Amino acid sequence: MSRRLRFGMIGGGEGANIGRIHRHAAALDGRFELVAGCFDAEPARSVRFGREVLGLDPARCYPDLDAFIEGESTRDDGVELVAVVTPNHTHAPIGRRLLEAGFHLLMEKPLATDPAQARELVDLAARRRRLLAVAYCYWGFSLVQEMRARIRRGDLGRIRALRAVCPIQWLAAPLERSGHAAAAWRTDPARAGPGGCIADVGTHAFHLARYVTGLRPRRLAADLAPLVEGRVLDDDAALWVEFEGGVRGRFWFSQIAIGHSQGLALEVFGEQGALAWSLPKASRLAWTPLHGPTHLLEVGCGALAPEARAFARVPQGHPEGYIDAFANLYRGIAACLRGEDHPTARSLPTGTDGLEGVMLVATAVAASRRGGWVDWPEEEVS
Amino acid sequence: MSRRLRFGMIGGGEGANIGRIHRHAAALDGRFELVAGCFDAEPARSVRFGREVLGLDPARCYPDLDAFIEGESTRDDGVELVAVVTPNHTHAPIGRRLLEAGFHLLMEKPLATDPAQARELVDLAARRRRLLAVAYCYWGFSLVQEMRARIRRGDLGRIRALRAVCPIQWLAAPLERSGHAAAAWRTDPARAGPGGCIADVGTHAFHLARYVTGLRPRRLAADLAPLVEGRVLDDDAALWVEFEGGVRGRFWFSQIAIGHSQGLALEVFGEQGALAWSLPKASRLAWTPLHGPTHLLEVGCGALAPEARAFARVPQGHPEGYIDAFANLYRGIAACLRGEDHPTARSLPTGTDGLEGVMLVATAVAASRRGGWVDWPEEEVS
Amino acid sequence: MSRRLRFGMIGGGEGANIGRIHRHAAALDGRFELVAGCFDAEPARSVRFGREVLGLDPARCYPDLDAFIEGESTRDDGVELVAVVTPNHTHAPIGRRLLEAGFHLLMEKPLATDPAQARELVDLAARRRRLLAVAYCYWGFSLVQEMRARIRRGDLGRIRALRAVCPIQWLAAPLERSGHAAAAWRTDPARAGPGGCIADVGTHAFHLARYVTGLRPRRLAADLAPLVEGRVLDDDAALWVEFEGGVRGRFWFSQIAIGHSQGLALEVFGEQGALAWSLPKASRLAWTPLHGPTHLLEVGCGALAPEARAFARVPQGHPEGYIDAFANLYRGIAACLRGEDHPTARSLPTGTDGLEGVMLVATAVAASRRGGWVDWPEEEVS
Amino acid sequence: MSRRLRFGMIGGGEGANIGRIHRHAAALDGRFELVAGCFDAEPARSVRFGREVLGLDPARCYPDLDAFIEGESTRDDGVELVAVVTPNHTHAPIGRRLLEAGFHLLMEKPLATDPAQARELVDLAARRRRLLAVAYCYWGFSLVQEMRARIRRGDLGRIRALRAVCPIQWLAAPLERSGHAAAAWRTDPARAGPGGCIADVGTHAFHLARYVTGLRPRRLAADLAPLVEGRVLDDDAALWVEFEGGVRGRFWFSQIAIGHSQGLALEVFGEQGALAWSLPKASRLAWTPLHGPTHLLEVGCGALAPEARAFARVPQGHPEGYIDAFANLYRGIAACLRGEDHPTARSLPTGTDGLEGVMLVATAVAASRRGGWVDWPEEEVS
Repeated sequence: MSRRLRFGMIGGGEGANIGRIHRHAAALDGRFELVAGCFDAEPARSVRFGREVLGLDPARCYPDLDAFIEGESTRDDGVELVAVVTPNHTHAPIGRRLLEAGFHLLMEKPLATDPAQARELVDLAARRRRLLAVAYCYWGFSLVQEMRARIRRGDLGRIRALRAVCPIQWLAAPLERSGHAAAAWRTDPARAGPGGCIADVGTHAFHLARYVTGLRPRRLAADLAPLVEGRVLDDDAALWVEFEGGVRGRFWFSQIAIGHSQGLALEVFGEQGALAWSLPKASRLAWTPLHGPTHLLEVGCGALAPEARAFARVPQGHPEGYIDAFANLYRGIAACLRGEDHPTARSLPTGTDGLEGVMLVATAVAASRRGGWVDWPEEEVS
Repeated sequence: MSRRLRFGMIGGGEGANIGRIHRHAAALDGRFELVAGCFDAEPARSVRFGREVLGLDPARCYPDLDAFIEGESTRDDGVELVAVVTPNHTHAPIGRRLLEAGFHLLMEKPLATDPAQARELVDLAARRRRLLAVAYCYWGFSLVQEMRARIRRGDLGRIRALRAVCPIQWLAAPLERSGHAAAAWRTDPARAGPGGCIADVGTHAFHLARYVTGLRPRRLAADLAPLVEGRVLDDDAALWVEFEGGVRGRFWFSQIAIGHSQGLALEVFGEQGALAWSLPKASRLAWTPLHGPTHLLEVGCGALAPEARAFARVPQGHPEGYIDAFANLYRGIAACLRGEDHPTARSLPTGTDGLEGVMLVATAVAASRRGGWVDWPEEEVS
Repeated sequence: MSRRLRFGMIGGGEGANIGRIHRHAAALDGRFELVAGCFDAEPARSVRFGREVLGLDPARCYPDLDAFIEGESTRDDGVELVAVVTPNHTHAPIGRRLLEAGFHLLMEKPLATDPAQARELVDLAARRRRLLAVAYCYWGFSLVQEMRARIRRGDLGRIRALRAVCPIQWLAAPLERSGHAAAAWRTDPARAGPGGCIADVGTHAFHLARYVTGLRPRRLAADLAPLVEGRVLDDDAALWVEFEGGVRGRFWFSQIAIGHSQGLALEVFGEQGALAWSLPKASRLAWTPLHGPTHLLEVGCGALAPEARAFARVPQGHPEGYIDAFANLYRGIAACLRGEDHPTARSLPTGTDGLEGVMLVATAVAASRRGGWVDWPEEEVS
Repeated sequence: MSRRLRFGMIGGGEGANIGRIHRHAAALDGRFELVAGCFDAEPARSVRFGREVLGLDPARCYPDLDAFIEGESTRDDGVELVAVVTPNHTHAPIGRRLLEAGFHLLMEKPLATDPAQARELVDLAARRRRLLAVAYCYWGFSLVQEMRARIRRGDLGRIRALRAVCPIQWLAAPLERSGHAAAAWRTDPARAGPGGCIADVGTHAFHLARYVTGLRPRRLAADLAPLVEGRVLDDDAALWVEFEGGVRGRFWFSQIAIGHSQGLALEVFGEQGALAWSLPKASRLAWTPLHGPTHLLEVGCGALAPEARAFARVPQGHPEGYIDAFANLYRGIAACLRGEDHPTARSLPTGTDGLEGVMLVATAVAASRRGGWVDWPEEEVS
């Protein structure tokens, strides 16, 4: 194993859970070292957090993005990757600045709040030949890879339908009215963008469905509903996506689904069998052949495809954790940056996936307003 | 306990599972005795089945419906209830004949294949003061009653959304092309009516949702898709129903959902908590108060409402079976016919519920064709 | 189907759940009709219960056992089976009287409170050529039959070990001190016999293990513990049974296991695979071949053996209930009495099984006192 | 966060899963850096593994233990902790050498193969004031901590019984005869010590039970059985442990339990309630109050005790993985070495726990041979 790659972080300061998760994920395989960052929009808090909480070199705890770019661009040992974990509406402008400055990026999703911004980032990364990865973290579970491997090798025959849901409960109470910062920006169109639930959790489920099946969407219908009083953005969203070949995708996302902390689940139904996976039972995949009983496949078991085994770290029968999955993003990025071939690098979620997520939000918002089907803006995907 | 009530059956002959289930269900509580029937459209088979398989009085094993009506109308000890368990398209004409002849009925669902026929049956039953029950059998699980009781007493606060799904796998292969009789009529618009999956399983789930919440539908959108090649009727159906007060209902039914033998599930989300029940875990109800952990309630446990306890026969910790649930239809009918007050009688699914199911199919078919929302024909519900 | 067989009941009056379960079970298949009984040790209550609650012919609602025997022995249409559902200590004397009078019996377990009494009943039934069935009701689940069928046809290879547990919670509080009748007699050695938990639930689990594997016990060690203060009989019991061939049986039963309403579970481990079934998921059987993933088999699925299918009434995907299982006792008895061949008749639990249960209690009590292994009294089993 | 602590590893080379798990676990929180090691008993392989696979400073990739001790003892930047992950029989001699040389240790379990050796290590660590931690990794799940916290604050009332099982399947086939290295040493008394299954998995379950309840064992009975032909050490082991106050512990461990990859489970039953946790559902804890329904508590939920929250890294609803749990060992060690107070440090499994595990094996072997109860050698625990 070579030396650790240096990375920096934008956002992720005091109280920001997702920044902490990124730090664990980056550390797990020993392939990255956090060396710099701008952790908070408030300069003093940013610097203090880097120095005192993270114990970084004080010279690399920056008060703002400009200072970060200036400092890290000019050092010989400048960061080789930047993780951007700020609120949604800042993703695009921060990403643009960093790509222009020549950094490789891992961006939190959604990549942007409108498709044009997202496309700009994708194009910019392509022109500058920079890596633009997007943190669709659930992709990193090894049994998600197994789903894709089995579908690709034809175990299900022709796919007919899929179901992807993501019920969560965290916004069932109007937290945004009681000073909860994350709830406040996620329910505010100015900071979250035009989609609420669909952007926050729907894009994850949509990415999984797209990734696992490889099917392109053709058109969609949506019903985006704000169900908590006073809320403007949807906190419950349902989609029907017609994929190529008439395949039906039934999607449902909710932030008011009391009883579900995080109920992400995906099922794919083919002519010859079906696969079912869910986050609450993430270490288990159900495979049912037509006319046969359901088989339960476990992380690490001998029946798995090589790419699924390559994503796993734990022995069979032991739970694969959220951080294991998240760490596969960093594992794939490390391989990309070093020019190594590894399953995590080959299928790493990138800007194109991020753009699709932003298109999903925009298209669903349009379809919901119209009250009928809207074609997927196919021409936009390169 | 009084003497057993006499009942007859139309349909349910050789190989008809549902007829057998009705017979077990009617027997379980010792309140009914099967004494007559016309079990098959083919006269000789009808008579033979009644005599040889069921051991009935040969004089009461009728070759056809006319003979049944003639015979049972004129006996002093004629049947007091008729169970109609024939294919869909015959429900309405058979039901009409029987109601006109003055019989009380338990009809299999759907009540009819179009709303006008269904309404006619409802009106006829009302005019003739006959009982018209409809076999929405899943209503009979005691924890379904518990859901309704908790919602009625306000445990969930204002309801915001519900999810009802019914994935099954039985038509994943094109059985109708290989001589499977039940698959043949269920996939044939001439015999099944205009809805496939939505009529066969969707009406069950819709009835549960309506029953449990008491909410009236306002409008709906639907996507009904035949996904198996060569099929005309939908074998995968998704609905969004907007109920009064903006409550969102997310429905999905499928007959091609490999991995699910019968995956009926219902969740109701309110401001103060949520309830979740499913057929695969029918003896358990999950109740999650806002901010609280999920509580698992079991059939027969002390925390249940009296009406839920009244539906149950088994000791706590023991599985309540499909036949237990089905038998509650007969239990309720017995109480109705005897003028007894019992929870099963008070909430027995009747013609109005059956009519709603037929309206659901018709409205969903219209909405799916139109590709947008369609108002619920509210005026039709009396 | 022939006419219904007539049966009577001893015990099972007001408040006796088990009597009610027997009545449902006998009714389910329409093969039995309850026509007589002595339902309570208190004569007036017995008669009143039969007349008013059950609606039986007043002449056949007897005040005591003598009257029952006298009455039913002398009628042309006397009962053809008697179900005995009284407290433990009365089983043997009641059973003896009824067998001597020539009745076929279905006895609640344990058959007696000591092996000599139980043997006497078995011998008496043999001499008088009467049926002596014992209500090991869990035998009646169709997937229990599937376990046995798979073991018999060799799917598991040589068996190495099994695990059978039955945790329940119902005596976790000292109910016997607060006037709870069933708790009072079950914790009283004078009425329950020398075993508490081991007799009440342990005999069920032991019967299942014996039935499913066909293995004979060689020796056992036991630890029977009364864990609730003031209790004399065990409310938590653990056993190790060494079966023929050195096969290890690991048993644990408890009546203080809060969190388990009825947690009966059985697993059998062989050289080539393992099977696992439990009451809380009674409609599902897990089969794991060596090196393979676990397969989930469902009630009614095509992969089941004919005898398992013969026990089931419900369509695949629908729950098989406790009463379905219990009803298979009556189904088997009906076939026995009519000389029909049916899987339920072939493997019906009889007096020999009942005797083994009584021997289990006696041997476990001896082993627990001794604090070491005790040989199974093999010579006693005919 | 301060600088990373330097640690070295003995064992854990090519193909050694447990070494890789330790490296992930040490990395996860960024508190440790692996800088040196002796990874294989074969010198050239040890050096090559450190250099080429791990990318360590070649000077610190040692050919043998002597060289490791010599090298690391004399450097200013020598390792501050050594993780020992070699086969069982080498633990004690390696541990002794390292403690004598003044290193802090994290030892894989079992600490030694006999109690005298284990005691010597404990005493040596005490005399030299070195940290001697033992890798009882399942302690690290946050819901295991929650169990202990609830028991300590009295939620269960007086404890009556507990059940701890650990069925696994990995030795169901005679792998040791087909060149499987780990299977070979684990089934060889010369290298594994006198216990097979009981040492390999039983010690984990026993530690959990001891840790969570705090109860001291008084006596035990055991049945240790080698069930695979040709095997000498137990691959299936059952224990009854009587703890102080008459509390019953029912333990069962197996390495031939097909169907269970790793089925570790612990339940504790008290007068006022019960707790149940298992590895297959590691992110969920079931709490059942007396007379109440079961509550499902999740990792990260608000109802958890502070110490449980301190062990968790993942947001509620996301799976806590095996490596998360394992990493808490390193987290606790880091806090110990830096003199910080943290829940992971306060309850870190240490040499005393390791010694108890070794005593468990020795006592169970004696009890199994004797075929009866044996007193726990209480005087040996300091």
